[in-house]
Amino acid sequence: MKAPALRKACAAVGIRHTAAMTSAADSRYRARGVSAGKEDVHQAIAHMEQGLYPGAFCKILPDIMGGDSDQCLVLHADGAGTKSSLAYIAWQERGDLSVWRGIAQDSLIMNIDDCACVGAMGPFIISNTIGRNAKRIPGSIIAEIIAGYQDVCALLENEGIPCHIAGGETADVGDLVRTIIVDSTVACRMPRQQVIDAARMRAGDSIIGFASHGCARWEDHDNSGIGSNGLTGARHELLHKDYAHKYPESYAPEIDPSFVYSGPFHLDDPLPESMGMTIGDALLSPTRTFAPLIAQMLKRIGHEDIHGLIHCSGGALTKIGKFGSGNRYILDALPEIPPLFRAIQATADIAWREMLSVYNCGIRLKAVVPPDQVDACLQVARDCAIPAQVIGRVEDNSGPGNHVEIHSPHGTFTY
Amino acid sequence: MKAPALRKACAAVGIRHTAAMTSAADSRYRARGVSAGKEDVHQAIAHMEQGLYPGAFCKILPDIMGGDSDQCLVLHADGAGTKSSLAYIAWQERGDLSVWRGIAQDSLIMNIDDCACVGAMGPFIISNTIGRNAKRIPGSIIAEIIAGYQDVCALLENEGIPCHIAGGETADVGDLVRTIIVDSTVACRMPRQQVIDAARMRAGDSIIGFASHGCARWEDHDNSGIGSNGLTGARHELLHKDYAHKYPESYAPEIDPSFVYSGPFHLDDPLPESMGMTIGDALLSPTRTFAPLIAQMLKRIGHEDIHGLIHCSGGALTKIGKFGSGNRYILDALPEIPPLFRAIQATADIAWREMLSVYNCGIRLKAVVPPDQVDACLQVARDCAIPAQVIGRVEDNSGPGNHVEIHSPHGTFTY
Repeated sequence: MKAPALRKACAAVGIRHTAAMTSAADSRYRARGVSAGKEDVHQAIAHMEQGLYPGAFCKILPDIMGGDSDQCLVLHADGAGTKSSLAYIAWQERGDLSVWRGIAQDSLIMNIDDCACVGAMGPFIISNTIGRNAKRIPGSIIAEIIAGYQDVCALLENEGIPCHIAGGETADVGDLVRTIIVDSTVACRMPRQQVIDAARMRAGDSIIGFASHGCARWEDHDNSGIGSNGLTGARHELLHKDYAHKYPESYAPEIDPSFVYSGPFHLDDPLPESMGMTIGDALLSPTRTFAPLIAQMLKRIGHEDIHGLIHCSGGALTKIGKFGSGNRYILDALPEIPPLFRAIQATADIAWREMLSVYNCGIRLKAVVPPDQVDACLQVARDCAIPAQVIGRVEDNSGPGNHVEIHSPHGTFTY
Repeated sequence: MKAPALRKACAAVGIRHTAAMTSAADSRYRARGVSAGKEDVHQAIAHMEQGLYPGAFCKILPDIMGGDSDQCLVLHADGAGTKSSLAYIAWQERGDLSVWRGIAQDSLIMNIDDCACVGAMGPFIISNTIGRNAKRIPGSIIAEIIAGYQDVCALLENEGIPCHIAGGETADVGDLVRTIIVDSTVACRMPRQQVIDAARMRAGDSIIGFASHGCARWEDHDNSGIGSNGLTGARHELLHKDYAHKYPESYAPEIDPSFVYSGPFHLDDPLPESMGMTIGDALLSPTRTFAPLIAQMLKRIGHEDIHGLIHCSGGALTKIGKFGSGNRYILDALPEIPPLFRAIQATADIAWREMLSVYNCGIRLKAVVPPDQVDACLQVARDCAIPAQVIGRVEDNSGPGNHVEIHSPHGTFTY
C-alpha cells in the first residue's frame, strides 16, 4: 500500500479505520458494519484531485472565493459518528440532556482539529447537519446540540480562534436514521504562507505526542481521551447485552448478535483503574480540541518549524504513515496507556497491533518538529496543562513509501 | 404564526414540511416519523441570529473570510433526504447503479437552488457527507454518488456557474444509518449588491411559477417534478406492501405497519396519465436545478427588479408565506398539476389543502417581480425550455403577517 494513494483518499473522504489490521481484527470490524480499511471507499475517490498541497493533512483549495493567490481555502466535513448512539442510550438511562452538548463538541472538533493541523486558525464558518428519527429524538435534543455548538464556539473564540455558526439543516429522516446523526462542515480561508504541509516531515525530526486524556486548561472535567474514533468497537466491546435488549434502535440489526454489546459493563459502572470515572462518562468524554495549543505553538515557534501536525483520528497512532514520503516513523517512547483504552483492550482481548491502529491510546495529536523546537513545544503543552513528551523520531526509510514502527511494552509493530 | 419567527427558523434549519396542515394530515406525517411543522426544531433555533439580510431566502453572513464590507457569504447545508431509501430499493430491484447519480444531484441541487434564490451564482465550493451502513452499501455506490456530484458540477460549470468539490466524509455508521444518508454543504462568497432579498416582495408584484416537470434545456430526460421534498409521504403512499417485506431496512420500524408502503404500485408500473414514465422513474427523477435559469434572469433583468425568488421546497406552494412582511400572496392561476402529484393525491385521497403545502404540485420555483418584468422572465423560461406563467400576485395584507391564498379547481385555501 502506497502512501500517496492513501493520502489522496484521506483528503477527499475521512477515514475512520486503518487498513493495517490483522484479518481477525478486521472481521470483528466488518461484523459490526465498519469496513476497517474502507478500501472500497478509497477506490471510489482515488481519481479526485488533491488540492494545492497534496501532502497536507487536509485538502486545501486555491482561494476560489476571493481569487487571491496568497490565500487558500479549507472546507472540511466530519461528525460525531456512532458516539451519538451512545449518547442516546445515556440520555434514555439518565434523562440528562447535557450529553448532547458533548456530541456537538465531538462533531465540531473532529473538523476544527483537522483544520488546525494545516495551520488554519479561523475565522471558521460552521454549518451543521442533523438527521433524526423524529419518533425517537425530540426538539429538546436538537436545542441541546445547537447549544453545544455555541458553547464550543464560545470556548474557541475565547482562545482567539473566531467561529461563526452559519446555520444548518435538521431533517426528519426516520426511514434512514435509527436515532440521530450529527455532522458539521467548517470553512476557513487562510494565507498560503501559514499552511503547515505535512509533506515537510523528514528524517531527523522529533515526534511529540500530546495527551488525549486528563484536563486541559480550557476543560472543566477529566477527559478519558477517547475522542470520536473507534466508538463502534468500544461501545460493543464494553457495554452489556442488556442494552441490546433495551435499545435495539441503537445498533444495526445486521450485526451478528454475538458482536452486539458483548461486554460486562453498564454505564454507571466505574472505569477500572480510573479516578472515579464511570464507563459512560469515559465513553462519552467530549473530543478535546487541541486548537488552542496549536495556536500557541504557531505563535511561539512559527509555522515553518512545525513540519507536521497529525490528528490521530482514523488510523490512530499509525495515521502519520499516510503523510510524508520515504519516512520511517519510529514511536518508541509512548506514555502509559490511559484506563479506558486498557479496559477496551483487556475486555475484548484485542491484539495490541490493532489497538494502536484503531484507538489513539492516549495520544490524539502529534507534532513533528526539528529537535531544537522540542522544548518550546513542551512548554506550550505545560501552559495548556496537557501532558506531552517526545514519543519518537523520523528516520529515512530508504524508499518512497513510509513505515510506522511502534515499540511498546506489548511488542514491536510495523505498519 | 408570525412570519418573522418562521423565517428565522428557516434560515438556521431547513424545513421540509409546512406547519399549515390539518391535524388528520399531520397525524399521517407523524405516523411516518416526520414532524410536519417541526415546531420543536423551530423552537430549538428560535434564538439564533439571522444574518445580514433577515428577510432573504438563505441566511447570509458578512464576509468573515475576506473582511470586505462589499461582500457576503452563504454556507448552506441540505441533502437528498429519504429519497436515498427509494434509490436503495430501486438499485436492489434493478441492479442499476445510476440511480445514485440522481441522489447526488438531489443533495447538491437542494443547496445550489436555495443559494441561487439569494442571487449566489458561484463559485460554489462543495463538501459532501455520506453516512452508510457498510453491510448494505458497497463502495461502488459511493463511487457513483461522487461521480454524480461531478456530473452536476460539470453541468453547472457549462452554464457559467463554477463549482469546486472540496472533498468530504464517508463514514461507516451502520449503528446509526439503516442504508445511506447523502448530504452536502456549499459555500459561496458574493457581492452584497447582488443579493436578492425576498423581504423586498411587495403589493403589486407579479408571481411567476416555473415548472418542476418536463425536460429543461440542460436535461436529457423528462422529469416528474418531485424534487427532494415529500418523499417519505410519496414513497409510502404509492408503493406496494411487497417492499415492506422485502426491504425492512428501507423504513423506520417505529411506523405503524398500516402506514408503511400502503400503496398499489410497484416501481416498474406505469405512472397513470403520464407519457410512458414508470412510478420508480417518477419518484426518482433527480431534482432539477433552476440555477441556469436564474443566471439568465439575473443577466437579463438584473437583481434589483427581482424582488424575490422562492425555491418551493419544504412548505411547497405555501413556502412563500415565510418571506416578506404584510403581504397576501394570491395564487389563482396555477397550471395543471403533473401526473405524479395527481397520482399521490388520488392514491391516498390526500386533502388538496395538504397536497399544496407538502408537494410542489408542478411549481418548484417562484419569481416575484414588478409586472413590467414578467415578459422578460417568461422569455428566459422559454429559452430554458421550462414552462412558466404568471400564477398570481402580491397584495397588501393590511397587517404585519403574511397570508398565502390558493385558488384552485379543488377549492380555495388560505395558509
